[in-house]
Amino acid sequence: MGTIKVIKIGGKLIENEEKLAVFLDDFAALQGPKVLVHGGGNKATEIAGKLGYLTKMVDGRRITDENSMAVITMVYGGLLNKNIVAKLQKRNINAIGLCGADGKSIVSRKRPVKEIDYGQVGDIEKINTDFIWNLLQQNIVPVFSAISYSETGELFNTNADSVASEIAVALSSKMKTELNYCFEKKGVLANVADDDSVIKEIDKQKYCELLEKKVINEGMLPKLHNCFQALEKGVETVRLGDMSLLKPDSVHTKIVIS
Amino acid sequence: MGTIKVIKIGGKLIENEEKLAVFLDDFAALQGPKVLVHGGGNKATEIAGKLGYLTKMVDGRRITDENSMAVITMVYGGLLNKNIVAKLQKRNINAIGLCGADGKSIVSRKRPVKEIDYGQVGDIEKINTDFIWNLLQQNIVPVFSAISYSETGELFNTNADSVASEIAVALSSKMKTELNYCFEKKGVLANVADDDSVIKEIDKQKYCELLEKKVINEGMLPKLHNCFQALEKGVETVRLGDMSLLKPDSVHTKIVIS
Repeated sequence: MGTIKVIKIGGKLIENEEKLAVFLDDFAALQGPKVLVHGGGNKATEIAGKLGYLTKMVDGRRITDENSMAVITMVYGGLLNKNIVAKLQKRNINAIGLCGADGKSIVSRKRPVKEIDYGQVGDIEKINTDFIWNLLQQNIVPVFSAISYSETGELFNTNADSVASEIAVALSSKMKTELNYCFEKKGVLANVADDDSVIKEIDKQKYCELLEKKVINEGMLPKLHNCFQALEKGVETVRLGDMSLLKPDSVHTKIVIS
Repeated sequence: MGTIKVIKIGGKLIENEEKLAVFLDDFAALQGPKVLVHGGGNKATEIAGKLGYLTKMVDGRRITDENSMAVITMVYGGLLNKNIVAKLQKRNINAIGLCGADGKSIVSRKRPVKEIDYGQVGDIEKINTDFIWNLLQQNIVPVFSAISYSETGELFNTNADSVASEIAVALSSKMKTELNYCFEKKGVLANVADDDSVIKEIDKQKYCELLEKKVINEGMLPKLHNCFQALEKGVETVRLGDMSLLKPDSVHTKIVIS
């Protein structure tokens, strides 16, 4: 029995056409069932700016108002998603571009309003595992934009890391599943200023040590939290790395339970 | 054995939220396998204008340059498509939003350059019938934006009427298929100034008579040509009408072979 590979690629990486091409070559070469989840990056901000939509911020947090959600649906759900699918088809990968409303694949609920109303932001409640599994069994490769669907009929902006980890967790009920986060760094760095200081393996104990020593920077914290959650909920392996993560000899961080 | 219903809804209709809601209620109520194809309307032109992309025209024909194609992918493939899917899910219809690259469902070739280079415009070559049929058999309702995929790896702007008729023709190899065009008029009008002058039925002979008498206006000609082609290639019934077309008692034009 093989392994399902769930790969999340960050928005900053897909904005660079050359880097994206290399990544998609590597992704296409991966054997076995696979799922791609992509972030959005700066393209949505750029388009929103040109359309004259102001980014609404409250206490330094970005709010997804109706206009922002329209831009996200256009840019993530349309432009980026469909172009990635076309580029995969060209590489003989039978891809299908999805958001959470498609096949009710990612059902979420509007983030509860406490101090801040984040607007059209959804926290994932349920993955339609059978729908995704059924596609994989037909050798179809799902490509997800980070948009979820709420049962109130709305589309919600959703954290792409969470989309990837929830899908990986859901699929782990069917088959061994590996979760891969591709971002700008080679992995978790012992020294944020030194790109070669990749920590090769982090278990729960190491994680606590790193937290104590404040080695892990703010941006990395929720990502690592996600990784451990995924492992605890059944994902076999979680790996973090840069574009080379899909290559057999990549330097990366592997997250393990113990 | 039932009938597959392929319904094309024009861009002008989906821009009106109230009309769209009524249409989607009727669409949701239709029994049996069904496919929705939607046009784009003025939203893309509006967004392109705001983004500062000029609509390129040659000899009065609209050219789909790279910027236009990006806007079409955003607006048709993203914004409109995913919102329609969400609204159908809310109506308990398990929809999936697709463009031609998804599952290689609509393969086209760039329109040959003769007097005019239309840019990224594709003429349909092949429908992936099995892929669409497989979705229908799982009670999934495909919702297509009028974007096709070329084997050179590009997304192409494609006539939505042709997308609907080619899909209907392809599916007619699997099951009886009915093709429905919903647009602004109640059907083909005997007098274009009189909305109540709907011609109830047009066969080939009647069509020739209407052509001779120049009753059919310019905009209607390619639509009717499409209708007869679909019938000749195996579609059981073709109907043209307004938003009420999906209601049991609608006034509309039925196109028949003889």
